[in-house]
Amino acid sequence: MNFEDFEEKTISRETIFKGQIIDVKFDTVALPGNRGAAPRELVFHNGAVAVLAITSDDKIVLVRQFRKALEKVIYEIPAGKLEQGENADPQAAMLRELEEETGLAAKTVTKIAEFYTAPGFSNELIYLYKAENLVKVENPRPQDDDEILERYEVSLAEAKALIASGEIADAKTILAIQHWELSTHA
Amino acid sequence: MNFEDFEEKTISRETIFKGQIIDVKFDTVALPGNRGAAPRELVFHNGAVAVLAITSDDKIVLVRQFRKALEKVIYEIPAGKLEQGENADPQAAMLRELEEETGLAAKTVTKIAEFYTAPGFSNELIYLYKAENLVKVENPRPQDDDEILERYEVSLAEAKALIASGEIADAKTILAIQHWELSTHA
Repeated sequence: MNFEDFEEKTISRETIFKGQIIDVKFDTVALPGNRGAAPRELVFHNGAVAVLAITSDDKIVLVRQFRKALEKVIYEIPAGKLEQGENADPQAAMLRELEEETGLAAKTVTKIAEFYTAPGFSNELIYLYKAENLVKVENPRPQDDDEILERYEVSLAEAKALIASGEIADAKTILAIQHWELSTHA
Repeated sequence: MNFEDFEEKTISRETIFKGQIIDVKFDTVALPGNRGAAPRELVFHNGAVAVLAITSDDKIVLVRQFRKALEKVIYEIPAGKLEQGENADPQAAMLRELEEETGLAAKTVTKIAEFYTAPGFSNELIYLYKAENLVKVENPRPQDDDEILERYEVSLAEAKALIASGEIADAKTILAIQHWELSTHA
């Protein structure tokens, strides 16, 4: 099938909410092939960065933080949203988040992948990097005022156990740990 | 730190939007430790299911569909949202989606993981399964009227190439393919 066989053309778009993190739109779309119209509920996001940071003793750096949408404290890899204008340089944004959230800088950075987190309703795209040869920053940029984080370092075996037990239950974090495990098979 | 050191208590909650797929809320929260108040933009979702379906000739079943939030056609593993009341039995919901999207049933089902897709703003939780010993359903339940899908089957090597080229750029799909690759090392 061609793009035309799939494309949902916008009949109307209503702005429901314009926030600091997300914009919410409500579309009515024309289904292809004269199948009629359908509603689409959409959450637009500026994108984010995340980092698989590996220490010199082969541990992954994790942070625990409270997530209001879940009313829970969860483990994640260091991550943060792209500020306006940062889309042109997500690697710099990643290094900023790494410093703010962990006090670390990285001498070696490689890009792992970019992926959509929830394409059924959102355009959020995460740029995922690997950071190695980490060094402590003398006077790191402070965490955001409204972010309270606790930092952990765990081995691959420990990270896998946290996934198996359900204590790590964040898609980008599982994806990064799997990538790390696969890279050790190389 | 304890939960109290992280918890953001709700000062006020405003309902911005109540849709068929998402509810959007705007909270003002009290930061712990008398750090003041902060806004939280939240997208509530009923959860979803997804499936790593492996054919008898060791290929993964993928679907291509248009995603309005991206204005693109993307590759994903078969997936769908939980209907109201299905939360108690996500495996049944997964089998329904598999049949609707691919016309297949599975004799062997195992749970892989459950994970949050975008915990920074959403509570969407995906239940991911592996389905094997697939059989064609004689008269499968039809696709949803407003879903146009194209089905593909690719080998692990082909799936990895699609990730490397960026053509597969969906978090749950990459996570499932990496799981598949790791399971072949066992």
